Amino acid sequence: MTARRIGILTGGGDVPGLNSVIKSVVYNATEIGCEVIGVRRGWEGLTHMKRADLLSAGGRYDSDYIRPLDRVKTRTIDRTGGTMLHTSRTNPSKMSANRLPSHVPADQLAGYEKADGIYDLTPLVLNNIEYLGLDYLVTIGGDDTLSYSAVLDQSGVPVIAIPKTMDNDVQGTEYCIGFSTAITRAKEAINRQRTTLGSHERIGVFRIFGRDAGFSALYTAYVTSARCVIPEAPFDLDRLLSVLVEDKLANPSRYSFVIASEGAMWEGGTLGEFGEADAYGHRRKVDVGFALVEQIKQRAGEDAVNSELTYDLRAGEPDSLDQMVAITFANIAVDLIREGGIHGRMMAIVDGKYAHVPIPEPGNPRKVDVDTMYDLNRFRPQYHNRLGRPLLLGASLGSGEAALGQPVEALA
Amino acid sequence: MTARRIGILTGGGDVPGLNSVIKSVVYNATEIGCEVIGVRRGWEGLTHMKRADLLSAGGRYDSDYIRPLDRVKTRTIDRTGGTMLHTSRTNPSKMSANRLPSHVPADQLAGYEKADGIYDLTPLVLNNIEYLGLDYLVTIGGDDTLSYSAVLDQSGVPVIAIPKTMDNDVQGTEYCIGFSTAITRAKEAINRQRTTLGSHERIGVFRIFGRDAGFSALYTAYVTSARCVIPEAPFDLDRLLSVLVEDKLANPSRYSFVIASEGAMWEGGTLGEFGEADAYGHRRKVDVGFALVEQIKQRAGEDAVNSELTYDLRAGEPDSLDQMVAITFANIAVDLIREGGIHGRMMAIVDGKYAHVPIPEPGNPRKVDVDTMYDLNRFRPQYHNRLGRPLLLGASLGSGEAALGQPVEALA
Amino acid sequence: MTARRIGILTGGGDVPGLNSVIKSVVYNATEIGCEVIGVRRGWEGLTHMKRADLLSAGGRYDSDYIRPLDRVKTRTIDRTGGTMLHTSRTNPSKMSANRLPSHVPADQLAGYEKADGIYDLTPLVLNNIEYLGLDYLVTIGGDDTLSYSAVLDQSGVPVIAIPKTMDNDVQGTEYCIGFSTAITRAKEAINRQRTTLGSHERIGVFRIFGRDAGFSALYTAYVTSARCVIPEAPFDLDRLLSVLVEDKLANPSRYSFVIASEGAMWEGGTLGEFGEADAYGHRRKVDVGFALVEQIKQRAGEDAVNSELTYDLRAGEPDSLDQMVAITFANIAVDLIREGGIHGRMMAIVDGKYAHVPIPEPGNPRKVDVDTMYDLNRFRPQYHNRLGRPLLLGASLGSGEAALGQPVEALA
Amino acid sequence: MTARRIGILTGGGDVPGLNSVIKSVVYNATEIGCEVIGVRRGWEGLTHMKRADLLSAGGRYDSDYIRPLDRVKTRTIDRTGGTMLHTSRTNPSKMSANRLPSHVPADQLAGYEKADGIYDLTPLVLNNIEYLGLDYLVTIGGDDTLSYSAVLDQSGVPVIAIPKTMDNDVQGTEYCIGFSTAITRAKEAINRQRTTLGSHERIGVFRIFGRDAGFSALYTAYVTSARCVIPEAPFDLDRLLSVLVEDKLANPSRYSFVIASEGAMWEGGTLGEFGEADAYGHRRKVDVGFALVEQIKQRAGEDAVNSELTYDLRAGEPDSLDQMVAITFANIAVDLIREGGIHGRMMAIVDGKYAHVPIPEPGNPRKVDVDTMYDLNRFRPQYHNRLGRPLLLGASLGSGEAALGQPVEALA
Repeated sequence: MTARRIGILTGGGDVPGLNSVIKSVVYNATEIGCEVIGVRRGWEGLTHMKRADLLSAGGRYDSDYIRPLDRVKTRTIDRTGGTMLHTSRTNPSKMSANRLPSHVPADQLAGYEKADGIYDLTPLVLNNIEYLGLDYLVTIGGDDTLSYSAVLDQSGVPVIAIPKTMDNDVQGTEYCIGFSTAITRAKEAINRQRTTLGSHERIGVFRIFGRDAGFSALYTAYVTSARCVIPEAPFDLDRLLSVLVEDKLANPSRYSFVIASEGAMWEGGTLGEFGEADAYGHRRKVDVGFALVEQIKQRAGEDAVNSELTYDLRAGEPDSLDQMVAITFANIAVDLIREGGIHGRMMAIVDGKYAHVPIPEPGNPRKVDVDTMYDLNRFRPQYHNRLGRPLLLGASLGSGEAALGQPVEALA
Repeated sequence: MTARRIGILTGGGDVPGLNSVIKSVVYNATEIGCEVIGVRRGWEGLTHMKRADLLSAGGRYDSDYIRPLDRVKTRTIDRTGGTMLHTSRTNPSKMSANRLPSHVPADQLAGYEKADGIYDLTPLVLNNIEYLGLDYLVTIGGDDTLSYSAVLDQSGVPVIAIPKTMDNDVQGTEYCIGFSTAITRAKEAINRQRTTLGSHERIGVFRIFGRDAGFSALYTAYVTSARCVIPEAPFDLDRLLSVLVEDKLANPSRYSFVIASEGAMWEGGTLGEFGEADAYGHRRKVDVGFALVEQIKQRAGEDAVNSELTYDLRAGEPDSLDQMVAITFANIAVDLIREGGIHGRMMAIVDGKYAHVPIPEPGNPRKVDVDTMYDLNRFRPQYHNRLGRPLLLGASLGSGEAALGQPVEALA
Repeated sequence: MTARRIGILTGGGDVPGLNSVIKSVVYNATEIGCEVIGVRRGWEGLTHMKRADLLSAGGRYDSDYIRPLDRVKTRTIDRTGGTMLHTSRTNPSKMSANRLPSHVPADQLAGYEKADGIYDLTPLVLNNIEYLGLDYLVTIGGDDTLSYSAVLDQSGVPVIAIPKTMDNDVQGTEYCIGFSTAITRAKEAINRQRTTLGSHERIGVFRIFGRDAGFSALYTAYVTSARCVIPEAPFDLDRLLSVLVEDKLANPSRYSFVIASEGAMWEGGTLGEFGEADAYGHRRKVDVGFALVEQIKQRAGEDAVNSELTYDLRAGEPDSLDQMVAITFANIAVDLIREGGIHGRMMAIVDGKYAHVPIPEPGNPRKVDVDTMYDLNRFRPQYHNRLGRPLLLGASLGSGEAALGQPVEALA
Repeated sequence: MTARRIGILTGGGDVPGLNSVIKSVVYNATEIGCEVIGVRRGWEGLTHMKRADLLSAGGRYDSDYIRPLDRVKTRTIDRTGGTMLHTSRTNPSKMSANRLPSHVPADQLAGYEKADGIYDLTPLVLNNIEYLGLDYLVTIGGDDTLSYSAVLDQSGVPVIAIPKTMDNDVQGTEYCIGFSTAITRAKEAINRQRTTLGSHERIGVFRIFGRDAGFSALYTAYVTSARCVIPEAPFDLDRLLSVLVEDKLANPSRYSFVIASEGAMWEGGTLGEFGEADAYGHRRKVDVGFALVEQIKQRAGEDAVNSELTYDLRAGEPDSLDQMVAITFANIAVDLIREGGIHGRMMAIVDGKYAHVPIPEPGNPRKVDVDTMYDLNRFRPQYHNRLGRPLLLGASLGSGEAALGQPVEALA
């Protein structure tokens, strides 16, 4: 059977490059005679959309959730970040009661309850996909989005998934959309902020996302020739403080800094260590940036500041590399759809090359391979022994690599 | 007497444009046959410098604190932010015991004590200025730096002061160096982050510096056509929430936002209002961005995020307008020094023009004139009745205007 | 009479900031209950639009030329350069035969012929304005657009004009929209290209627009601390070459450069002077950048390159200052329309303040006042005696200043 | 033997990333106890340097040409483009009489003459290298620099070469330093200039470097979803014009554009075709941008402009990818030097991975593989069949691939 109609959705946190994927899927799909249906707000579009008989406005589609896409509507979107389809963190197989679609009859919803207060709306999603007439679904997202993509594919809806996350920690691929732009923005911000560190002769901590994996910190450090600490490698706090003080003294501009993944922590360090623990409560977890600044001030006696690299890293247009990967992932996805037969796969970079792999299991983020990628002694990326490695250095596909079970498909 | 030797220093928080002032003073001064002596770390340079007989390294100057400047050393500095001279918040007339220079004999220091534990090192500063042979001092800073500049000028050291602060709240001038670059950076950051707000359909709060005065929030709102709240005008929280929700609904991209000065607060609002007060403690004051986000979530039921515009606004090279004003302030300062006779004045923009005014009294920041500059009803800058106003709109010199005492000098 | 319907059009070369004017006019006008009708392609919209009876598509307006504007259509346009209304260089009073609207009957057109092959379509324009029901016209443009604005105003159509041009050479105003962004872009490009000049140890010539007036070169030189040559001041070629060679020798990075207005020329210089004159033909006039590079190579024996600052200077989003002025000009224009009675005026900056002035006569561009603004001896902007000058330094309104005839309106 | 002293030089046109290589070589080499000697102005440093006995200033090294490097001198250079060592196009084996070092005795020079007026200074270079005590030479450059690197290596001086060129057309490697930054800058410039094309409803031609190879045009087109023409594929001019007109009509913003390599030409096209041939003379070759604009105007009757992407593409700081590759190439080079034994090799990306290959023969630039990389029918990059390709898509190493003779070294 040839696909006639492709659905597309984006889930999880937005990153630059999502719109490039959407545009490229639309342009390429229309070339091969396929329609593309945009599903809005991630999986919520497929749980909450109303059918024609419930729409006061008439029409076949619930425009709150469903938007047919064409070239005109997507022509310029690749020049902006974010996702024109909006996004959400909905997981249809684990919906809480307060998130259920209100237009669905209570008794029908009751049938979806799996545990107390947890509903699995997969039957509803499948019905809606059938209603929309989708032959294929292209999903773009991180861990959560990917995991439900696998569920759906196993339920009989052919899915091609495209990984995105600034953390770059999706298993099975060396690259996720949004990662390069995040590094580009972080590099620019850090290099700009050197002058304010130097003017005040401070030690800086640049906190960057990455609760489980340190790729963002590590690669930003690589391209700025900086120190970094990452979640995968608890560090010696005394040594770090002493290195930062030495760096500052050796620097004619009298500053130094370290890039810290939000999940990094020193050896033996716990949140409770630095008093007034309940002050931080459940609302705001103490962050390593704040904690490190306290340590630098108290134990090293140096002025220090915590600069958080947050929303700006996921804002704005994608950089060239993200644009290239986003476009290419999209085109390979449509190539696969056109050729038919292949589904339940995730676009990936494997060993430096475009590939597709099984959609990874959730809850097991890819980690930095500390032995080959990080120099714990110097708080730096590993610069030696790069020969034979892929352009972006990351040969490791994470702990799940061996367990992928199926061979990587990478046709020449 | 003709000035032969000019000292220059920078104090307070750094902003882009300081280096442009330094370079222009050096280039212009050398043209008229003056030497320029860079004093490092603001006033600390004049309290902590050692004289020749105490220097183990030999030489006339203590290079930790004193650096003669020339064209080669300052040739490229105008292309970077910050200050090559470093900066500090030292106030020589109010030094605490733990900040005193250790090489000064204890009995000498004892003579400087004015109140318990508070020392006035002005005699030492005057001695050091005499030792350095400075005929004039050019000081670049905000409130604190300016106030001691006035003290010193009254003590017989001719001073020309140049105002800088991102807050733009120095009395007596419509413009302070660093302000335009801050607006430029804020505008870029906000426009970039629109996509992530829209992708997630959120209401954004962009918190921007300005504890006492709302110029930064107001002007950023002006150039981004946005809502803002400022310290000078406590606002109706319910109305703001309702306006933000309406904005979001009216926006096809489904987001809205407000720019909040850090000192803004709603009517009747106090920090104690939103529980767990002691959780925020003395370490981190609750900020209005965080507080507003809580209110939006709880009372308006909308997803919201707080994006802080912090170090990036004071980082990087100055924008064109800051570069122009910095260069011009510096050149007028040296013109005044060359002509002689005029001192104890601050460079300023008055009624849209370059002027010099008395150095303002400290502790009385300039405020936004709410009546003519802000539309409290719409949470917007005032766009009407701009005819006759200066290019940068700000005709008001703040509450101290009438009290300036001396006429503004602005020779055609 | 109260205005109910405002027409708006953009003419001449595009600059960043035009869309900000359009948006602000629309937002402000709708606030006071006015409709805004966008006229596309400058004056061509008013000469070439078809009326309802000629439109195959039906509807009241010829969408090729006429587009009613509202807030939704203009919401995001201020974030991009250019003009959403398109632009042209049409002058309705001087149309050549091949540019006439083809749908207008030949005999009617014949009545418009004023000289052989030159037509004055003003009667047609007036009819179309009446057909559109426009009570006021806001026109945004340079010399040509402004001149026909005056004609039209004198023919009974109330017009408010807004000056734009990167050259900043419109008489009667110290500032035209697009100027600041051009300087911002030029500064960035020049500072970036320093490294390639230095790597190759070259002398650079940065050619910048400005055939009649040197404002662009002068202000770019001001903010980059550079040499410049401008049309208003023919220069001593030998001296310039010798200064550039000296600059290069004195520079540790071994380069130097000059910014040249396209209309600058050395004393006694003419195009014919440097051989193969007919080689340059009518198609491409020899430019001073190319000519200077030849002179540097041949006479100074130095490697040199000509870097042209062209389209990029008018591209992209407006900088903060342009955004501020564009928004303010638009708001004052609508304020004037709302108050009524005032027309035939151009928005302006006069003596550093927002004002409105008579629409200037065409063909007499404002020039740099060499005596006070340029240092011919040093090929530099004049940095001295800036006290009392407006923020942007330019007190001079050009040669037409005295002849403006009517007093400047600038109500406090 | 262990290397104790490494020489480093940069040749040919500068690109962003050279300084990153220099810094990384210095940092890494000092770590393994090596000195690094900077040779200035490419090979000219080794032909023109004076020895100690000829230096009036004294010292061992001729500072015009030789500068020992250390961490302090190179600490900040990776944040700027260009090369701190300066560069030249000198080829020591083919020096013309007027470029010979004047301090070398005439009879000695006479011995170097190989053909009339052409000198091979290799013996002098070898002597100077011996004088400098260099155990290894790291050379960074394009075709010319690489070719003499091979000569020198065969003469007994161990050389490791690092490829750089914006054209990305060095044989044997899929990536050359400077390429990614050029694409990044070109993308930004093109996206910015869309508004001015649209405002004037024009067809744009963006001319980009690439006389022999179309990589720059092709990759810029890839990431901007644009049309391009490249030297490797003479195109059907009529079809291109018709496609551009169609694109413009289909675009709501009413513009279209093509990116043209400077070496692209239409089928049957020659320079003589478009009149006044001698007007362009030998000084300025007619460029395809200009020629295409003429064709678009004359034959398609559309307004068109030629925007040249020139110096800005090689200016400013390297982008993240160039920084990463530059740092990694440098580190692998020093790893090889440390391990010893390997020389006469060029750093490369082969099949998406870091490798080293024989230094390629000169005069045979790598070309775009039209069959797999370009869609001549659509004037677009090939978007299909990317599966299995390296991240940057370019699996092809050019026509010289098969002839490389030696196996690629890429140790895991």
